[in-house]
Amino acid sequence: MTQQQADILLTHGYVVTMDDSMRLYPDGAVAIKDNLISAVGPVAELEAAFEADTVIDCQNCIISPGLINAHTHASMTLLRGLADDLRLDVWLYGYMMPVEREFVDHNFSYTGALLACAEMIRSGVTTFCDMYYHESEVARATAEAGMRAILAQTILKFPSPDATNYDESLEYCRRFIEQWLGHPLIIPAVGPHAPYTATPDMLRNSVALATEYDVPLHIHLAETTLEQDASRQHYGVPVIPWVEKYDLFKAKVIAAHCVHVDESEMRTLHQYRAGVAHCPSSNLKLASGVAPVQKMVNLGLHVGLGTDGPASNNDLDMFEETRLAAFLQKGVFGDPTLLPAKTAWALATSEGAKALHIAHLTGSLEPGKRADIAVISARATHQLPYFARDPEAIYAQLVYAAKSTDVRDVLVDGKILMRERQLLTLDEAEIIDEAKRIARRIDAFLIAREGSLLSKLLAISADFIPQETYEIQVKARLPELIEVSAILKAAGIDIQRSSVRDQYDTYFFFEDKEAGRLRFREDEVRDERGDLKETFYTMTLMGPSSEKEFENSIVLTRARYTASASHSLRFYREYFKPAAEREVSKHRQRWHIIYQETDLAINLDVLSSPEPNSFYLEIKSRTWSAKDATRKAELIGELLEKFGVQREDQFKVDYLDLAS
Amino acid sequence: MTQQQADILLTHGYVVTMDDSMRLYPDGAVAIKDNLISAVGPVAELEAAFEADTVIDCQNCIISPGLINAHTHASMTLLRGLADDLRLDVWLYGYMMPVEREFVDHNFSYTGALLACAEMIRSGVTTFCDMYYHESEVARATAEAGMRAILAQTILKFPSPDATNYDESLEYCRRFIEQWLGHPLIIPAVGPHAPYTATPDMLRNSVALATEYDVPLHIHLAETTLEQDASRQHYGVPVIPWVEKYDLFKAKVIAAHCVHVDESEMRTLHQYRAGVAHCPSSNLKLASGVAPVQKMVNLGLHVGLGTDGPASNNDLDMFEETRLAAFLQKGVFGDPTLLPAKTAWALATSEGAKALHIAHLTGSLEPGKRADIAVISARATHQLPYFARDPEAIYAQLVYAAKSTDVRDVLVDGKILMRERQLLTLDEAEIIDEAKRIARRIDAFLIAREGSLLSKLLAISADFIPQETYEIQVKARLPELIEVSAILKAAGIDIQRSSVRDQYDTYFFFEDKEAGRLRFREDEVRDERGDLKETFYTMTLMGPSSEKEFENSIVLTRARYTASASHSLRFYREYFKPAAEREVSKHRQRWHIIYQETDLAINLDVLSSPEPNSFYLEIKSRTWSAKDATRKAELIGELLEKFGVQREDQFKVDYLDLAS
Repeated sequence: MTQQQADILLTHGYVVTMDDSMRLYPDGAVAIKDNLISAVGPVAELEAAFEADTVIDCQNCIISPGLINAHTHASMTLLRGLADDLRLDVWLYGYMMPVEREFVDHNFSYTGALLACAEMIRSGVTTFCDMYYHESEVARATAEAGMRAILAQTILKFPSPDATNYDESLEYCRRFIEQWLGHPLIIPAVGPHAPYTATPDMLRNSVALATEYDVPLHIHLAETTLEQDASRQHYGVPVIPWVEKYDLFKAKVIAAHCVHVDESEMRTLHQYRAGVAHCPSSNLKLASGVAPVQKMVNLGLHVGLGTDGPASNNDLDMFEETRLAAFLQKGVFGDPTLLPAKTAWALATSEGAKALHIAHLTGSLEPGKRADIAVISARATHQLPYFARDPEAIYAQLVYAAKSTDVRDVLVDGKILMRERQLLTLDEAEIIDEAKRIARRIDAFLIAREGSLLSKLLAISADFIPQETYEIQVKARLPELIEVSAILKAAGIDIQRSSVRDQYDTYFFFEDKEAGRLRFREDEVRDERGDLKETFYTMTLMGPSSEKEFENSIVLTRARYTASASHSLRFYREYFKPAAEREVSKHRQRWHIIYQETDLAINLDVLSSPEPNSFYLEIKSRTWSAKDATRKAELIGELLEKFGVQREDQFKVDYLDLAS
Repeated sequence: MTQQQADILLTHGYVVTMDDSMRLYPDGAVAIKDNLISAVGPVAELEAAFEADTVIDCQNCIISPGLINAHTHASMTLLRGLADDLRLDVWLYGYMMPVEREFVDHNFSYTGALLACAEMIRSGVTTFCDMYYHESEVARATAEAGMRAILAQTILKFPSPDATNYDESLEYCRRFIEQWLGHPLIIPAVGPHAPYTATPDMLRNSVALATEYDVPLHIHLAETTLEQDASRQHYGVPVIPWVEKYDLFKAKVIAAHCVHVDESEMRTLHQYRAGVAHCPSSNLKLASGVAPVQKMVNLGLHVGLGTDGPASNNDLDMFEETRLAAFLQKGVFGDPTLLPAKTAWALATSEGAKALHIAHLTGSLEPGKRADIAVISARATHQLPYFARDPEAIYAQLVYAAKSTDVRDVLVDGKILMRERQLLTLDEAEIIDEAKRIARRIDAFLIAREGSLLSKLLAISADFIPQETYEIQVKARLPELIEVSAILKAAGIDIQRSSVRDQYDTYFFFEDKEAGRLRFREDEVRDERGDLKETFYTMTLMGPSSEKEFENSIVLTRARYTASASHSLRFYREYFKPAAEREVSKHRQRWHIIYQETDLAINLDVLSSPEPNSFYLEIKSRTWSAKDATRKAELIGELLEKFGVQREDQFKVDYLDLAS
C-alpha cells in the first residue's frame, strides 16, 4: 500500500473528535495536510496510511478541537483589573468608556489583541469572536498570531473611540469588511453593540451591511433585566421581538449573553438560526444573572461559550468558562444532571462553531475541516487518577479537572502556534512591554482624574444615562407671551403632547473649566388646573461644549449625562464642593411636535430668576448623529420663522449668564 | 545596629498581609526564624534589620498567607472522575459509598491524602480541614508532606470503611486524637458526618469527645433543601436548632456548607462562634444551591472556603473556589458589589483560619504567626497589565486573574514545601504510580459490578434511603388470632400508634446470590372500618444477610435500601430481568409500642399466600448500632414471654420460604 503524504501527524493521543457521532479514539491520531485535517482514527491505521514530515507524539495527552471563545472584546486585556466589584453603570460609564475614549486608538486595539491572542493560544483557544473599535487593527494582530476569528466592528449611537457618530462607524465597518473579506483566518462582521445603544435606523443599516457582504452580525442581546424592563417599558415588547421587528434576524446573528430570554424568545432565536454566546463569568461578575443554557440546548439552539472582555472576567480562560457553564446550570436550576460534561465540552467546541456559523470550517476533528487543534496534557497531578470504565469520562476530565495551563500544543489552520507551551508566532516579551507602557499611561490619566465630576457623580448615582451628543437649539426673547398652540395649529403642525412645569435649577461651577458643570434640577410638573402633579429631581453633568452656528440655529456638541438625584441639594453641595453656584428658575410650557417627520420640542419660558418676568421661546432637538444634527438645524430655522421671529431677535445668552 | 538572625528572608514581593489592618507592602519582605514569622514590612527595613541564611527574591511576585482549604475529603482524589453529572443520591449511594466500602483501607487513605497534598501544595494551599476514614493515615501523609491540617475522623450511623457501627468509630476517633494531639502540624478532630447520618446519641457522644480533648468538631450542616425539609418534617425544626438541641455547639464547630440556613440559623451559628466552610464548586456541581455568604459575613460569621472532596469538584484548586465564591454572590444575589475581591481573598486566608479556630496560628502574615506562605507569580500573561492607581487592585488580580498554577513557592511552618514549582517533601512520581495502581483495581471492580442491583435500582429511583443495618426480630406461629392490644394493656405497655394494612410483596431473585434480592411491595393501608385509606409502593434491596441468634430472638445484619416505587411491577420485572420471583401476601395489624424506653413494632399477620390462613406474631426492631442491637434482642425475648410464646414456638422460616 502506498502511503499518503501528510505535513503533520499527531500520534498516540486520546482523540476527542466532537463530530456528530462523538467518536473517541483512546489511542488515536490526526493527520494534517496543508491547512486541513486529512484523517482521524486509531493510531495504528493512520501510521500505516500516512508518511508525515513532522510526527508529534501526544502520549498522555488529549487531542481535541481547539476551544472557541464565542464572545470577547480582546483588546480590553489592556483594561484588565482597572476597576472591579462595581455596579455595571459605574464600571462602564465611569471607567471603561472614559478610559476607552481617551486611550483606544490603533495601537491600543492592536497591542491589546496581541496580548489576548497570546493568552488565548496559551489556553487552547483557536477561534474567537470579537467586538471592538479599530477592528482592522484587531484583525492585523489576529492574522499575525495565526488565530481564526470573527471580528465585528462596533457600531454605537454614542461617539466611540473610532467614530464621532454611527454614520461614521458604518462607513468604517464597510471599509473593514472590504479589506478583510476572503482572508483565510479572518471573517469580518458587523457589530451593532446592543439594542439599547442603537437606534432602529442604525440596526437596519447594520443588517443591510451584513447581508450585503454575507458576513455575521454580532450583538449583545438581553444581557440584563434592566435591558428587558426598559424594552418592555419603552417599546411594549421584550428585546428579541423588538429587534425582530427591525429585521435583525435577516443577518447571520451571533447574540452574546441572552441571559433574560423566555421560551418564546428562545424559539425566535432558534427559528432564525441565531447563535448564542453564553458568558457565565461575566454574567456573574456584573450580576447580570444566569442564562437558561440547558433549555436553549433542548430547544435546538446552538450555544457557544465566551469569556466576554477581560475587564469583566478578568481573563480569557475558556476552561474556566466551560466548567462554570456546567456548574451553573446544575446549581442554579437545581439538577446535577443538567449540562453534563459531554455537552459542556461541545458548547466549547463544535456547538461554538455552529453558533458562530462556521461549523463547515472548524469545531470538530473530521477530514476536510481546518486543522484547529488543542493538545492537552491528561496526566497533571490535579487530573489523576484516570478511570477507563467509562470512555466518556474523558469529557468530565476535560471539563471538571483539566486547566488551561495543561494545554501543551496548539494548531490553527494546520500551523503550529504553540509547542510545549512556547508561543511560535508571537514575541510575548515585546507585547508585554508595550502593554505595560500603555497601562502606565492609563494609570497616570486615572490618577489625575481622581475626583473628576463624572466619577464622583457615578459613584453615587443608581441610574445614569448618557444623553444625545448633539443639541440643536434656537432661543428668542419675546416682548410678551404668545399663543404657541394656536400658531402651531394655524401652521398645520401636530402637537404630540404638552406639559406645564416649574423648574428650579442650581448650577455648580468648578475651578477647572474642562471639568464641566453640574446641574441639580427640581421639576414640578403641574396639571391643567395648575395643581402640582409630580416632582422629580435630576443631576446632569455637562461637559465643555463646542458650538456651530447655522442659519437661525446653533448646534451644541457636548457630553451630557443625567442621573436621578436621590439626595438633597445640600448633599450634592457638600459632596461636590463647587467653586460657585448659580440659580435659574422658570415656569415652562412645553410642546412636543412632529415637523417634517422629525421630533422637536418647543418651550415657552417665563423666567423668575435671574431675570424676573422675562419671556423666551426655545425650539430644541437632540440627536446622536452629526448628519442628523445638520438636518435638524435647518428644520428649526424654518420653524422659527413660523413664529414670526426674525434672525435679529435670536438670543444667544444662556439663562445662566443673564444678570440677576 | 546589630542585625537579627533569620532563617529565610523573602524579599521584593508585593506583601499582602491579610492582618486586621489589611496592610500591604508593594516592595515588601517577610523574615522567618524557625517555624515563625519574625517580621513583615518594607524590603529596605527588613534587609537592614535581618541577616538570613536563605534569601528568596520574590520580585514580580505576590507574597500572601497560604490558602486555607476549609473543607475537603482529601483521600477522595483517588475517586476523582469516577462518576459525574449524577444525582446526589446516585452519586453517593450508587458510586462513592459502595466503592469506598470496598476500597478504602489504610493504604487508600494514605495514598489519596498524599496525592491531595501534592495537588494542594502546587496550588498554594498551606492548611486544610479534612473529614474521612482511617484519618490517622491521612495524618501520616499530611505530616510527611509538611502541611498543616485539621483532620476529622468520620463518625457515621451506617457501617463505614473503618467501622461497622458508630460505637467503633467513636473508639477509633478517641485513639486517633490521643495519637496526634500536640503535633506541630496536625490538629485531630471529631467528624460526625451530618445530622441526617447521625443519631442524637451519636451526636452527644461526638460532642463529649471533642470537648474532652478540646479539639474541633467538623460536620456537614444544611447542605441541601432535602436535608432541611426532612429535618422540619421529622423533628419539626430546621437543622441548626435540631443540632443545637443536642448541644452540638458546645464543641468548637466547623460547619461545612450551610447552604440552606435562614437568618435565625446564621445568628445561632454566630452566637456559638461556629465556623462555616463554604464550598461553591461542590454546591453547584451537586445542585445543592448557593450559600448566602455575604449575609453571613455581614452578620459577623467567620466563613472559610473549601473545595469539598475532589470527587465532587473535581479538583482541589482554591483559586477556583475563591473566584467562584465572589462571582456567585454577585450573580445569584444580583449585586456586583457583593463579596468584593478583598473580602474573597480574606475568606481564602485569614477568615478561613478563624472559621477553623486556628487564627492564633495562621491565616495572615504577622510576627509570631506560623510561617505558612504562598509566593505567587504576578506577571503571567493572563494577569497583565497591572495598574498601580489603586493598591487594593492587588486583591482583584489575585481573585479574578491569577491561577493556582501561578503559585511559585510554598512554605508551611517555616519549611519550604515547593520552590519554583518543584515539590521538595513529596515524591510525586511514586505517589502517582500508587494512585494509578489503586485506580486500576477500582476500575476492574466497577466494570464487574456493571449491572448490579444497587446501581440499577439507584439509576431509576428518585428517593433512596439506606435503612438500619441491624434487624432484631422474633416470629411465632399462632394456632389462632390473639388480642394483642388487650395483652399489651394487661402488661401495662403503652401503644404509640397502630395500623391495619394488606401487603402484596413480589420478590425478585437473581443467579448471583451475593447480588441480594429485591422486593416490590404494594401497601394498602385501611381505616378502622376496613376501607382503603391509602396505597403506596416501595422497592427494597436487601443484601446478603448474616444471622446471630440470641435468647428468644435473631439479629439479622444486612444492607437494606428502600425507595419509593414510582413504576409498575411490570416495569421492574422487565428492567431487572430476575431469574425467579416469589409472592407473599398478608393482612397485617401493626402496633408501635415503647417498652423499656425502646421503640418496638409488633405485627399480627394473616397470610393469604404462600400459606393461606396461617397466623403469625412478629416482634421487630431496627438499629444502626451493634451494641444497641444486643440490648434490643434481649428486650424482644422478654416481651415475647408476655404473649405466652415459648421458645419452641419460635418460627425461623421466612414467609418467603413457606411452601405454597
